Amino acid sequence: MVVKINENYLKLKSSYLFVEVARREAEFVEANPDADIIKMGIGDVTKPLVPAVVDAFKSAVDEMADAETFMGYGPEQGYGFLAEAIIENDYKKYGIELDTSEVFISDGAKCDTGNIQEIFGLDNKIAVTDPVYTVYVDTNVMAGRTGEMGDDGMYEGLTYLKCNADNDFVPELPSEPVDIIYLCYPNNPTGTTLTKDQLKVFVDYAKENKVIILFDAAYEAFIHEDNVPHSIYEIEGAREVAIEFKSFSKTAGFTGTRCAYTVVPKELMAYDGEGNVVEVNPLWNRRQTTKFNGVSYPVQKAAEATYSEDGKAQIKEVLDYYMENAKVIRESLTDMGLEVYGGISSPYIWVKTPNDMDSWDFFDILLNEANVIGTPGSGFGPSGEGYLRLTAFNTLENTKEAMERISKLEF
Amino acid sequence: MVVKINENYLKLKSSYLFVEVARREAEFVEANPDADIIKMGIGDVTKPLVPAVVDAFKSAVDEMADAETFMGYGPEQGYGFLAEAIIENDYKKYGIELDTSEVFISDGAKCDTGNIQEIFGLDNKIAVTDPVYTVYVDTNVMAGRTGEMGDDGMYEGLTYLKCNADNDFVPELPSEPVDIIYLCYPNNPTGTTLTKDQLKVFVDYAKENKVIILFDAAYEAFIHEDNVPHSIYEIEGAREVAIEFKSFSKTAGFTGTRCAYTVVPKELMAYDGEGNVVEVNPLWNRRQTTKFNGVSYPVQKAAEATYSEDGKAQIKEVLDYYMENAKVIRESLTDMGLEVYGGISSPYIWVKTPNDMDSWDFFDILLNEANVIGTPGSGFGPSGEGYLRLTAFNTLENTKEAMERISKLEF
Repeated sequence: MVVKINENYLKLKSSYLFVEVARREAEFVEANPDADIIKMGIGDVTKPLVPAVVDAFKSAVDEMADAETFMGYGPEQGYGFLAEAIIENDYKKYGIELDTSEVFISDGAKCDTGNIQEIFGLDNKIAVTDPVYTVYVDTNVMAGRTGEMGDDGMYEGLTYLKCNADNDFVPELPSEPVDIIYLCYPNNPTGTTLTKDQLKVFVDYAKENKVIILFDAAYEAFIHEDNVPHSIYEIEGAREVAIEFKSFSKTAGFTGTRCAYTVVPKELMAYDGEGNVVEVNPLWNRRQTTKFNGVSYPVQKAAEATYSEDGKAQIKEVLDYYMENAKVIRESLTDMGLEVYGGISSPYIWVKTPNDMDSWDFFDILLNEANVIGTPGSGFGPSGEGYLRLTAFNTLENTKEAMERISKLEF
Repeated sequence: MVVKINENYLKLKSSYLFVEVARREAEFVEANPDADIIKMGIGDVTKPLVPAVVDAFKSAVDEMADAETFMGYGPEQGYGFLAEAIIENDYKKYGIELDTSEVFISDGAKCDTGNIQEIFGLDNKIAVTDPVYTVYVDTNVMAGRTGEMGDDGMYEGLTYLKCNADNDFVPELPSEPVDIIYLCYPNNPTGTTLTKDQLKVFVDYAKENKVIILFDAAYEAFIHEDNVPHSIYEIEGAREVAIEFKSFSKTAGFTGTRCAYTVVPKELMAYDGEGNVVEVNPLWNRRQTTKFNGVSYPVQKAAEATYSEDGKAQIKEVLDYYMENAKVIRESLTDMGLEVYGGISSPYIWVKTPNDMDSWDFFDILLNEANVIGTPGSGFGPSGEGYLRLTAFNTLENTKEAMERISKLEF
């Protein structure tokens, strides 16, 4: 006997999208050291933590400095004070009742959406949208729920739900039986949304077919359309079929601070091999208590402060700033005659490449001729080919300058 | 088709050790509301973060408050500044050279020791010591590397390496072929250590048999014996066979702050199904970059400060305080005629129950008659039966008071 690796890892494509973007950027910078590059690629925020959050963060660190108020191990599921603030502010507002035992606080939606598949059997059939946030795919490849990637860029054994301009970015229901569907709305990477009615189609399908929906709502704070749900639990029956993921990363600038949460309703059921019903909430609780040790106490206090009156007002200002950028991008590109999607309830703008150009070719033109960095749509899946993602997280000045530069290009 | 759970979760024993301890405590408190309980059970620290750490933590939060110094997504593997401080202070001191790409910073050794098994095949045979930190066992049960738990308290398919007074808590090499061995030294729960020579036996065995050792050194900072290695890499050849886990939790009071790290040397190899050699470091890198988003920036700055001159001096004072408690426990219980182990290079003292009493019976006597809470040894595995764990993390006053109370008991 010898120690054996998890061979599923060998099925992963070795180069990660953003690694290739960084490589091309570095190559360009080396050849053009004086170029003023404007980064509109990776989805990272740029505005600092707001004052209310900073104050709460620091005063929680002060608590850690005093034996009387020091906090050691906290609950793996997160502190009640934060779960209660989440329920009050992110759910009650939309008429959704949750118990704190249904809210699991974590250090990131990437971790949660990556880890959630562990509590489900390896024999489940998985559906993802195409294009897709690659974490959903890669974590299922690593677990062994797929075969190899084919020449078409799709993993054998996965079901891809195509989303492009042809279907107005509304995925059709799977045409073959599946057990688990990942949905992310407002969508990463396309920035598009589903209306309540469109999402209800999926919830109804899930109920009918004993399917679970893994609903990533990390961009919920950017929603500006009335008929777009802020939580999947706004849809009747969703508590029986959906797990929801949310994050403070984009909402409150926590990408470097790290806090998120996952909702697993008590009504959510799955099945064992003999078809017996099993509650899912205790499985995730067991996963988290066994393999996770809770989020840093000062970080949880910082997250709580995002729900204070001051915190909410300050965060709204930041989000408005980003959405103004999104508007500038949408309008400028539209004026240039480009087709754009997203950017209304999302910080992401999904641009159709001119003249059906390849994603990477358009990326290279923007980099070389406008010194603007986007993210090639094809990096998010085969149906992303012919698109490029821009984000609204740069400064307004840079965003305007980038649009100015792009407007001078000829395609 | 219906969505199926991971049925391996059903093999887990439903009640976690500390849940049962808490239940008995709550029951006692309800019956005796005025009792002055002294908790010496769970391994959580009580001393606050030291001033050098608090200062660095808060000033990093200040950086997050300013657009010029704000930090968004960091490297999933952790910041170079912290990896460099770790290498300089925790390794160079012992003659060990590491590259920053071999150090992976995380939010906890529990997470890392729980997640590490994902990069290895499901067909590996696992060995653990008995008693054991249950995370090693449970995460392998959840992944499907075991059968059911037998009446003897052991999972089918796992190899248990017995550690008790009979072998002076030095595990023998596995008597059957295994692929992966979990070792934790200084040991949780027994507080005992392995000398360099004793650990070398395992390293040599691993090299000879193409086995990987997962070495949990979370309690390294408590080592006070010259012949006890601070890192498994002090043993010649260990870089080719061992992954090492360390944590700021017990060292610097970070149980509620969350920071740890894992070392995966470039020389470490495992094998694919055809016997081809595969480097392990890129696998863990892939796992972390796909399923983790790095540790909070202010927390990493706080961890870095543990290595400043002030930080080191302040932390030494805290550790000395805990070790004085350990000494009080050791000497007091020895004076009472009890057999005690550990507590010299560890905050844990492993007490043989008097008159071969059951662990839970001894627990109940201490709770009911001395109002002192320990942790029943049997909760850590069958070979823990007949022992009880006490920890040195309470105050010196409470520790002395607890010993005083126990000294009045008659067994």
